[in-house]
Amino acid sequence: MERSLREVAEFVRAQVVGDAAAPVTGISSIASAGPGDVVFAEDAQNFALAVASRASAVIAGEFASGAANQKPLLICAQPRLAFARAAQFLRSNPERKPGIHPSAIVHPTAKLGDHVIISERVVIAHDVEIGESCWIGAGCVVGANSFMGSHCELYPNVTLYPGVRLGSRVIVHSGAVLGSDGFGYVRDQATGRYEKAPQIGRLEIGDDVEIGANTAIDRGALDVTRIGRGAKIDNLVHIGHNCQIGEDVVIAAQTGLSGSITIEKNVVLGGQVGIGEHARIEEGVMLGGQGGVLPHKILRGKGIAFWGTPAKPVREYLKELAVLARLAKKE
Amino acid sequence: MERSLREVAEFVRAQVVGDAAAPVTGISSIASAGPGDVVFAEDAQNFALAVASRASAVIAGEFASGAANQKPLLICAQPRLAFARAAQFLRSNPERKPGIHPSAIVHPTAKLGDHVIISERVVIAHDVEIGESCWIGAGCVVGANSFMGSHCELYPNVTLYPGVRLGSRVIVHSGAVLGSDGFGYVRDQATGRYEKAPQIGRLEIGDDVEIGANTAIDRGALDVTRIGRGAKIDNLVHIGHNCQIGEDVVIAAQTGLSGSITIEKNVVLGGQVGIGEHARIEEGVMLGGQGGVLPHKILRGKGIAFWGTPAKPVREYLKELAVLARLAKKE
Amino acid sequence: MERSLREVAEFVRAQVVGDAAAPVTGISSIASAGPGDVVFAEDAQNFALAVASRASAVIAGEFASGAANQKPLLICAQPRLAFARAAQFLRSNPERKPGIHPSAIVHPTAKLGDHVIISERVVIAHDVEIGESCWIGAGCVVGANSFMGSHCELYPNVTLYPGVRLGSRVIVHSGAVLGSDGFGYVRDQATGRYEKAPQIGRLEIGDDVEIGANTAIDRGALDVTRIGRGAKIDNLVHIGHNCQIGEDVVIAAQTGLSGSITIEKNVVLGGQVGIGEHARIEEGVMLGGQGGVLPHKILRGKGIAFWGTPAKPVREYLKELAVLARLAKKE
Repeated sequence: MERSLREVAEFVRAQVVGDAAAPVTGISSIASAGPGDVVFAEDAQNFALAVASRASAVIAGEFASGAANQKPLLICAQPRLAFARAAQFLRSNPERKPGIHPSAIVHPTAKLGDHVIISERVVIAHDVEIGESCWIGAGCVVGANSFMGSHCELYPNVTLYPGVRLGSRVIVHSGAVLGSDGFGYVRDQATGRYEKAPQIGRLEIGDDVEIGANTAIDRGALDVTRIGRGAKIDNLVHIGHNCQIGEDVVIAAQTGLSGSITIEKNVVLGGQVGIGEHARIEEGVMLGGQGGVLPHKILRGKGIAFWGTPAKPVREYLKELAVLARLAKKE
Repeated sequence: MERSLREVAEFVRAQVVGDAAAPVTGISSIASAGPGDVVFAEDAQNFALAVASRASAVIAGEFASGAANQKPLLICAQPRLAFARAAQFLRSNPERKPGIHPSAIVHPTAKLGDHVIISERVVIAHDVEIGESCWIGAGCVVGANSFMGSHCELYPNVTLYPGVRLGSRVIVHSGAVLGSDGFGYVRDQATGRYEKAPQIGRLEIGDDVEIGANTAIDRGALDVTRIGRGAKIDNLVHIGHNCQIGEDVVIAAQTGLSGSITIEKNVVLGGQVGIGEHARIEEGVMLGGQGGVLPHKILRGKGIAFWGTPAKPVREYLKELAVLARLAKKE
Repeated sequence: MERSLREVAEFVRAQVVGDAAAPVTGISSIASAGPGDVVFAEDAQNFALAVASRASAVIAGEFASGAANQKPLLICAQPRLAFARAAQFLRSNPERKPGIHPSAIVHPTAKLGDHVIISERVVIAHDVEIGESCWIGAGCVVGANSFMGSHCELYPNVTLYPGVRLGSRVIVHSGAVLGSDGFGYVRDQATGRYEKAPQIGRLEIGDDVEIGANTAIDRGALDVTRIGRGAKIDNLVHIGHNCQIGEDVVIAAQTGLSGSITIEKNVVLGGQVGIGEHARIEEGVMLGGQGGVLPHKILRGKGIAFWGTPAKPVREYLKELAVLARLAKKE
């Protein structure tokens, strides 16, 4: 979508240096930039490359405000953030036209907000409520009594079990399964066989959450699994029943949380982390890739990085690795 | 579904203390219980909470049989098990009405038992046989020559490759892929390129198996991958070609089994466990989360817990961790 | 499909000993072989079993060329490879009839090559190009501007985001998601909230790649994620944005690559391996199951095996494990 640099600057709250009327149409990496593109630079080296590129404008930090050059600049405190917002601003989805594709099957009791897009072959069950401007990609199945706020995006082939509740601006990538049964069984002492424990709870997902491809999040067993506002969850993550995930939590790919875990706000979990049931990861903890936390354990410390299995402060863990390496070398 | 407490008691084989005619309609956690709900308690503390709750009845152990209270009780030896069975008994699925949705594509050679439900957009290929009272959720694809016994449940968007055989009462969650090609190649010594080894075997899944969301189970390369009766498999698990999984095996989320592995009956594998090809995990072994077993290895010992990579008895492994921590602290 | 042994021999480049006119119809394991089947043997023991089996012919190495026996033989240098090729040669898919199933939704701008098969409920968006003899399984969704060469096979319920490019003879298993958004966010220092970084790049997959069930591969953030010719990727693998995977790379199940990683040609990654962003695994390295590589690290050495987290040469790592076990035993 073509916009003037001034419009972009207003949206991303940056100051224009140079031709504010210059038209721009998209964003790009410096290497691939062409006319119409906006690029960004956070340091002098990248700034030089950006200026030398074929881009039409450069978003840069204050450091660049006095630079003499031929390209218009957008100067701001957080260039990477402004670049991300410029991308949103310049993004267009001409193919996403509001309406219900004739091949979709929408139950007559479903309530759809304005500007909703229901794509090919979608199935919407009874008593579903979908807020304005949501986009439901081809092949999605939305279970009965589900709810989503406004501006959600479900990419193709997402499955929502019945009764899942999404906030607004939630993005769910293809193949994700939301609200599946938790993994709970009771063993009959008489026969040695497992019987299914009830999995009838709910899944509630806050505003601005993004969920990666082929991730699976189980509903609560009896009560609620909850994903807090702004949480970002990567591909192929598993979140078990009854987990409580705080606001602005980041969970990298292939991490797995078993049941009834609490992850407090601002926690960052690396990829392939595994956490045992009933563990609690307290506010602001960072846990490195492949780290493991035993059931019922607590990790505590804002901004403290943990690593290893069982996870300990990374400094301790690195010391252990070093000691072991030294001993092995002596042999 | 409304039932009298007496009917529930008969189904779960418990003894009623109090008003056996009391109507109940569902199960609940103690915290969320309302009128009509049945809750359960395994100890005195939860029993006190259960009695004080708004639930209509409490399932409890013998310890509670003499308790003076205003609520009717169901007394039995295994309260959690009785609670699970009560949940099954009181469960109702009004939306699941037998029949074939007009949007489903069912090959004329397919044989469907009585009371089968084929949901929206399902595709059933030729020569499939589906036993009575199976429920096939929206968007499932069932490959040619597949077979399922009675009362199976396939949640939406499950894929069965051709020739997969399910027993009765098998539950498969959304996104699961059953019968995919195994990961087998032959390298041409002349060109260095890999060529696909044949993956033409079968996948056979026993009665009462449950398979989690987005789990993938490969067919045999030339012969059979087999999942034994009563095995419970969580989300995002990978099971490679030719594996033989015994009865009542429990496999937690994100665990991966490469090819030709034997897991004997009653084994419990934690989450994110990884097992190398041709390994054998013998009857009753427990392997902790993130544990790893090398190819061709054997783990042995009923009721013995293993942990770590390479997995060893948990006591040995914990000792190693303690020794290392102590050495690091000394530095 | 029935063929004469002579035809098979020509295709797999082997020499017939015995009745070259003998008809064969398929391949099999020795244990399950019946009349019409071809089996293979790489050593004398299996050769004896093969000859004693009910198979109609045996593929074997030079060692068997002088053997006196009643079965016709196919003698060649690489029996396992010839067996794999014979399987391809004898394979038939009678149900795969060229054409577009009436339930498929194909945008009028899509270009389909000769002999393409578009199965039930497939959705093909605008400006897609699909080369000759491709098979698109039921329920697949192919995003706009995607491209595939000839003879690709997409199993049911695969999702391609817009703009994904596949070479020829690419096989994609069910539930795989290709071209999803990468996991990139910018944190607003003022509010502490994460905003989505642009994920507008492409995904390019070379010829002869195979991708397992429920695997997810992200598009580039601004530029390209690339999977090289002949790479073989197992089930439930995660490949993040901007990764560059070389030719003939093998990646076992549940391995995860975060962003901007380079995997050079002929690398073999075991299952559940985790690799941090910007790491480089150089040509011919082998990395054992569950191994981990830290961000920005380099592993180097053709044919050298690494293991552990952080990964080190396997010999070093085993020595460390041995030292630790010895210390623990002394206690």
